[in-house]
Amino acid sequence: MDVNKARELVKSILSTSRYDHTIRVADTAEQLAKKYDVSQEKAVLAAILHDYAKCFPTDELKRLITYYQLPQQLLQFNKELWHGPVGAMIVQDKFGVTDQEILNAIYYHTTARENMGKLEKIIFIADYIEPGRSFPGVEEVREKVQINLDLAIQMALRNTIIYLLNKSVTIFPDTFYAYNAFMKNWEGD
Amino acid sequence: MDVNKARELVKSILSTSRYDHTIRVADTAEQLAKKYDVSQEKAVLAAILHDYAKCFPTDELKRLITYYQLPQQLLQFNKELWHGPVGAMIVQDKFGVTDQEILNAIYYHTTARENMGKLEKIIFIADYIEPGRSFPGVEEVREKVQINLDLAIQMALRNTIIYLLNKSVTIFPDTFYAYNAFMKNWEGD
Repeated sequence: MDVNKARELVKSILSTSRYDHTIRVADTAEQLAKKYDVSQEKAVLAAILHDYAKCFPTDELKRLITYYQLPQQLLQFNKELWHGPVGAMIVQDKFGVTDQEILNAIYYHTTARENMGKLEKIIFIADYIEPGRSFPGVEEVREKVQINLDLAIQMALRNTIIYLLNKSVTIFPDTFYAYNAFMKNWEGD
Repeated sequence: MDVNKARELVKSILSTSRYDHTIRVADTAEQLAKKYDVSQEKAVLAAILHDYAKCFPTDELKRLITYYQLPQQLLQFNKELWHGPVGAMIVQDKFGVTDQEILNAIYYHTTARENMGKLEKIIFIADYIEPGRSFPGVEEVREKVQINLDLAIQMALRNTIIYLLNKSVTIFPDTFYAYNAFMKNWEGD
């Protein structure tokens, strides 16, 4: 899929602030792709498309989870987690994107998971650190990503889980398993 | 198994400080059992036996995990988690304790799990709040347990997971699933 076409498509469907965020994620992902030897073209395309379903109404997201036979478990967790999987399915189904790395990057950009590919990691962390983000701990992650991609993701996952715990909400299992996996890798187990 | 016999057995195998902790857990568990309409006799016996394997050498715990065909996954996580499952197996195998509620209470007293029985909950929380404990947040949990057992456990699990995240160590899946389950129950999902 052509990146300019993708940009037009998401611009037509996202709110202005969400589109601006998307462009910042694409810029950040492009820089990280260069640094970590990943296709910049793929990184930009995945970033442009990552929030495609973000502004869909909740009922539509729910319907599409069933329509695309996505895990029903998603419906038991926060609806903020739904747009990644749904977006990946639409991008494949309607726009003919077949590159599995791009589809995985879109699917898992909110939750993360164990055994992420490099492009998934880049989209996940670009979404977390893009210059518009200002939550506690983000500056540390921005610095870390210049040195070690996995450690930066580990920090981001830890911050995210602590944030959710402090809000007393459930944590999606993929996020928890991703955290454990990054910790184990780092412990050298 | 007779409670006096159990007390003698654990006294002979635990360090003094661990034995003193055990007695405080038993006293706390007895009070909670009365409050929450659980057999006080079972609560005291489970509490007396809960740390039976706590002072075993690491290699012995490792050997017993294999000997008793406990989940090998345990070996990939912190060794502090091993004495509960091993203790439950020994108490059954060597001392003829067959009451499944007591065995479960010993097995899961460190990690917790989804769908805990009432006795499991009482031993888990008694171990967390016994009067010798002084970590941050414990006083809040002590107050909460007088009002709502599940909410107290939810707080304890949240505190424990945040503590582990801040130490940047892995979290055992049962603990994470217990947290999610208590949160969901409370959200009324």
